[in-house]
Amino acid sequence: MTEGIEAVSRAAIDHAAARFARDYAHFIRRTPLLRLPGRALGVANEEVWLKLEHLQASGSFKARGMLNRLLSNPIPASGVIVASGGNAGIATAAAARELGVKCEVFVPTVCSPAKQRKLRELGAQVVVTGAVYGEALEACIARQKQTGALTTHAYDQPEVVAGAGTIGKEIEEQGGGVPGAVLVSVGGGGLIAGIASWFEDRTRVIAVEPELAPTLHRARQAGAPLDVAVSGVAADSLGAKRVGGIAWDVTQKWVREAHLLPDPAIRDAQLDLWKEFKLAVEPAAALPLAALRAGIAKDAARVCLVVCGANVDPATLA
Amino acid sequence: MTEGIEAVSRAAIDHAAARFARDYAHFIRRTPLLRLPGRALGVANEEVWLKLEHLQASGSFKARGMLNRLLSNPIPASGVIVASGGNAGIATAAAARELGVKCEVFVPTVCSPAKQRKLRELGAQVVVTGAVYGEALEACIARQKQTGALTTHAYDQPEVVAGAGTIGKEIEEQGGGVPGAVLVSVGGGGLIAGIASWFEDRTRVIAVEPELAPTLHRARQAGAPLDVAVSGVAADSLGAKRVGGIAWDVTQKWVREAHLLPDPAIRDAQLDLWKEFKLAVEPAAALPLAALRAGIAKDAARVCLVVCGANVDPATLA
Repeated sequence: MTEGIEAVSRAAIDHAAARFARDYAHFIRRTPLLRLPGRALGVANEEVWLKLEHLQASGSFKARGMLNRLLSNPIPASGVIVASGGNAGIATAAAARELGVKCEVFVPTVCSPAKQRKLRELGAQVVVTGAVYGEALEACIARQKQTGALTTHAYDQPEVVAGAGTIGKEIEEQGGGVPGAVLVSVGGGGLIAGIASWFEDRTRVIAVEPELAPTLHRARQAGAPLDVAVSGVAADSLGAKRVGGIAWDVTQKWVREAHLLPDPAIRDAQLDLWKEFKLAVEPAAALPLAALRAGIAKDAARVCLVVCGANVDPATLA
Repeated sequence: MTEGIEAVSRAAIDHAAARFARDYAHFIRRTPLLRLPGRALGVANEEVWLKLEHLQASGSFKARGMLNRLLSNPIPASGVIVASGGNAGIATAAAARELGVKCEVFVPTVCSPAKQRKLRELGAQVVVTGAVYGEALEACIARQKQTGALTTHAYDQPEVVAGAGTIGKEIEEQGGGVPGAVLVSVGGGGLIAGIASWFEDRTRVIAVEPELAPTLHRARQAGAPLDVAVSGVAADSLGAKRVGGIAWDVTQKWVREAHLLPDPAIRDAQLDLWKEFKLAVEPAAALPLAALRAGIAKDAARVCLVVCGANVDPATLA
């Protein structure tokens, strides 16, 4: 896909936000912005804004994009279909339940019983097939050709990116202005593409990735998206192998910085967010804090960290 | 104590709030207000406000009262002293660390190693003595007579109550007005006394207690505070045996309703706040939601639930 820039306009984000507020406020939450003096987080920035998007319906920001995708397209009687054992699958199932349409989710056999149960609780038909994700995806594509169901993609569809962009709009409204920098985790890049499409050049949107899942960083080195090996603490939610086409286009235009963080720093930030702030979040959601503490955006008086997901086993925080 | 009404004025709450904002914003957090349509929580109220006070420093609302107590009195070289293995002890230790003063915390031998470690991490001198809380308290009183340290009480000191009252002020400011009802958990009653002192007769402040820890309910039946047996899921934080004198006076004046909830409903609400809203809270913090779902305050268009603490072992939420 190369339609990025044209496809995700501020108008598209405004449209999604207005629809969420008017008709779906019982589902898509206007998540709180927690404003703290930098000192509270041990950094020199005057103020840090934590956008608590991990409190979003379905436990991650992805509900915004998936609902927007479903609202923007005709949904056949066969419903929607997705291959994902992670946040994208959960968000698709939650959005489908909200709209009362059928949902099939394809997951590989390695998908944990807990995640399969969660998907079933959301009313999805779960198809367990293939040893690895790629095989589940193949089976999903074959099934979609039979049924004609609407597909959702975890990050590389314009409506999905525009849905994520509504987070940027909320940050600006809740903060009463544009912060000096916004730190955003990148996997496939849907979240940063949405947020950068909203802010454009009005702030510094900064990409942060695990050293062990450097999709955007490596693409920037190579000059084009390419497959990379992914592993590490955040691979569960930032485990896309390649940055999306939309995200590539948008970040090439608006994002000047992409930083890598080591796993121990990410894990420390995750544990600290629980211990000191009682925010139970997944590793991907702690990346921006790890980056801030590593000195990234230290010159921004007001900096926003997007806390993107809470799909964590709470026992791992104890 | 019977100084309640006079001692906890709106002016005292305003004063505490101004001091927090001016000099201690890096410590006392202006916790977020999450506004949801009632439908999102399965109730008919038009709007539900969740005051996310479990995100407060020290993991509960008690940091407000303890800091206000310490700021309102001269602190001798011997520092501060408290008998508590729970939220009050943690909050006292955190406030003492913030002000750079010594802190002794007396706990009985039943106090878990995890809690003792938490207190030590906050810089407190932990004295483990006595088989039950009463014995630790006795030892604490004897020690205070020797050292002259400033004592903090979990709920029955005017400065502690005024500190808690700043939550009421924030709710009103963040919500842009006074909600139709505010649901508040009661143990010793410091939290509800502070919030009711702020709102006075401008809203319905409603007390909610576990059936197994009915300090206020039984006092109202008897016409005066009295000792009651306490147990059950919320006893850890709502385990005061008797409602405080200040809380008694204030609630007699401003609180018309005190309701009891069974443990299973409290536990269900706690698990649901994690599962559906990714809020990791202790049982006491889930009581208001359990009450709302039981039909309490169902006629209020806008109702506020005070989510008061997060001192929970996250493994118990899995």
